Amino acid sequence: MTPTLLRNVRPWGGETSDVLIGDDGILEVARPGAIVGAPADVIEGDGGILIPSFSDVHVHLDSTRMGLPFRPNTAGDTRWSHIMNDRENWRSAERSVADRATYTLGRMIAQGATRVRSHAQVDADSGLEKFEGVLAARAAHRERAAVEIVAFPQVGIHLEDGVPDLLDVALRSGADLIGGIDPCEIDRDPVRHLDTVFDLADRHGVGIDIHLHEGGSLGLFSLDLVLERTRALGMAGRVSVSHAFSLAARSPGVDRALEQIAELDVALTTIAPKGSLSVPLDLPIERLLSLGIRVGLGMDGQRDYWSPWGDGDMLERTWMLAFTQGFSRDDLIEDCLAIGTWGGASVIDPSLARLSPGARPGLAIGDPAELVVVRGDTPTAAVMDRDADRIVIHRGRVVAQNDELR
Amino acid sequence: MTPTLLRNVRPWGGETSDVLIGDDGILEVARPGAIVGAPADVIEGDGGILIPSFSDVHVHLDSTRMGLPFRPNTAGDTRWSHIMNDRENWRSAERSVADRATYTLGRMIAQGATRVRSHAQVDADSGLEKFEGVLAARAAHRERAAVEIVAFPQVGIHLEDGVPDLLDVALRSGADLIGGIDPCEIDRDPVRHLDTVFDLADRHGVGIDIHLHEGGSLGLFSLDLVLERTRALGMAGRVSVSHAFSLAARSPGVDRALEQIAELDVALTTIAPKGSLSVPLDLPIERLLSLGIRVGLGMDGQRDYWSPWGDGDMLERTWMLAFTQGFSRDDLIEDCLAIGTWGGASVIDPSLARLSPGARPGLAIGDPAELVVVRGDTPTAAVMDRDADRIVIHRGRVVAQNDELR
Repeated sequence: MTPTLLRNVRPWGGETSDVLIGDDGILEVARPGAIVGAPADVIEGDGGILIPSFSDVHVHLDSTRMGLPFRPNTAGDTRWSHIMNDRENWRSAERSVADRATYTLGRMIAQGATRVRSHAQVDADSGLEKFEGVLAARAAHRERAAVEIVAFPQVGIHLEDGVPDLLDVALRSGADLIGGIDPCEIDRDPVRHLDTVFDLADRHGVGIDIHLHEGGSLGLFSLDLVLERTRALGMAGRVSVSHAFSLAARSPGVDRALEQIAELDVALTTIAPKGSLSVPLDLPIERLLSLGIRVGLGMDGQRDYWSPWGDGDMLERTWMLAFTQGFSRDDLIEDCLAIGTWGGASVIDPSLARLSPGARPGLAIGDPAELVVVRGDTPTAAVMDRDADRIVIHRGRVVAQNDELR
Repeated sequence: MTPTLLRNVRPWGGETSDVLIGDDGILEVARPGAIVGAPADVIEGDGGILIPSFSDVHVHLDSTRMGLPFRPNTAGDTRWSHIMNDRENWRSAERSVADRATYTLGRMIAQGATRVRSHAQVDADSGLEKFEGVLAARAAHRERAAVEIVAFPQVGIHLEDGVPDLLDVALRSGADLIGGIDPCEIDRDPVRHLDTVFDLADRHGVGIDIHLHEGGSLGLFSLDLVLERTRALGMAGRVSVSHAFSLAARSPGVDRALEQIAELDVALTTIAPKGSLSVPLDLPIERLLSLGIRVGLGMDGQRDYWSPWGDGDMLERTWMLAFTQGFSRDDLIEDCLAIGTWGGASVIDPSLARLSPGARPGLAIGDPAELVVVRGDTPTAAVMDRDADRIVIHRGRVVAQNDELR
């Protein structure tokens, strides 16, 4: 493949540079005009800030209604009522799961995400239909983004018949990871739930990404069961916990859990939720970075039967992460940008360098050619402005520019 | 003045209508095509949603750096360090206070705010220079928005010499209200601080808008002193409390304060801040609406020496209010839109109808011709989309369209 020469970009807001990239990674970084001779497709960066591309590591591509007429929210107050509201309505959406997931993934890519981990609901009602819709979206955009799919038992594993078999089929049909959810609150049998999840992971040789909304001591109990199994099965580095609201509190139990999470190299994902006085939800992200814990960011559902929030823009979600963390200092806001880009990449690929406070990785020779150019005086200004005119690069090629897919 | 005929708009997302407006208010609302005969300037609404214009009732136009090169944040962790950081830097801004305030007010109007209450810092260091800059911005946009100015003793009243006299001059020179701030934490003499504020209000016959960041029992104590003076001086309906973080907690003391706030018709303003486990900041807005308490929304500082946040868009701030309140239900999100528009208007003008949960006022015959047309399937969708193509109307005339001032 002909390399691409990105001219006049500022890596992480630093000195203006030219950057030569191939499909396998960054080949050269030099002062403007210094890269000559090699044939290359030239892209003018116009002084924009170069950062690693965004990584959305927690999205539900199967539930989105982005691009369809807006539909008022008919869910109730509980998580279960949301699950059932989706079940009652998803089949009557104006477009198929595949169409909706494809459109939404396209919007995510156009706005800068080229690394994605999507959950795909597998349950007795929808069977593999939602999973297959996400597979179709991945296929449609295979030249534009790398998409991992989690076979996700949203409605539990043991409440309805046949779910373990469906998960098994999904894992033989293209799913990259096995999911799980609130083992106490949904299946109400945490050991049976988690043993099934870890057994499927073990048999298929795949990683795990488990939703843990459970808060307080219940959440810490479920988390402890996850950590216990991660250790026993030698799955260090291959387990992610999504949400992990129980870690938003401050307690000795949280401290002990964080120590084990670091030791077992368990990754965490957050959607930058808004917590409250009675229900804290924010992960202590600076502490996670200090402990070397991998942490990534995601959009969660996007304008779906669960909620009207979410629009595919990971730069905006990065802005929300900084907001929910209460950050005004530039270094802290830019740590959020590092999490929204490289942090998620390291959740997907544990061989990548770990983030730490102040670290700005991802733009050295040999790093993946997964990049975004965004306008702004500084990285913090870019987060605040969220300018829509971006250049998005996947495997060394421009896949979107100025909010449109190529 | 020739009336304006707004064609094909949907009041609060309802049936498509034509709306005839004059400078004094809404003249007629009818089915499309039904208003004929009267000479009028015709504006095509294209099926957009008609809402009251946004009211930013808590902004600091004197501190903004919007439109200037981004400047990293050099403030420390405390409120005092932020005050001093501003003092050390504001004179070296690339443009005058008047220029900066004028630009920022223009951006606010272009995005839909035609009713504004801005604080203008008055202190020993800046004298009346910041206040005069805000006066100049108001004059520059006098045909586009109604702007109230609060003479605001940001650095306290009794810590430095001459502040009461400066406030007195400001109130004789165009300030509409007298401000105050954290009477315990800044001046450290709450009675003396508040007596001076209420005395200035009494002598000049103006209202009061006091910043109360103080939380917990200290904040409730200061609030109680404010309420006591409001009652004693017969100032019901003429006092606003900004932030009022102490009301974000849940306690019998908060309940008693809310009862008195309702009884004395004290208005509250919020900037939709992000609280935390240890420091809750969110006003209980649904409870305020139920109690008939006037509540409005504001941007606070905008990309200034305090923080990089804020961009003049009150529709985005409305979205943040819904986010910080954790709302996903359409009626609750639309209550936020009512607060960001009509709620603030009623903070400025207590003669306007009060909001209550689910109430969607401001678009009846006789209501002010302060209006915005914004795209969206429903009001909730409009809040989620935050489309930049809006029509902004002040005193019956279009003052901005598609993000540009007229």
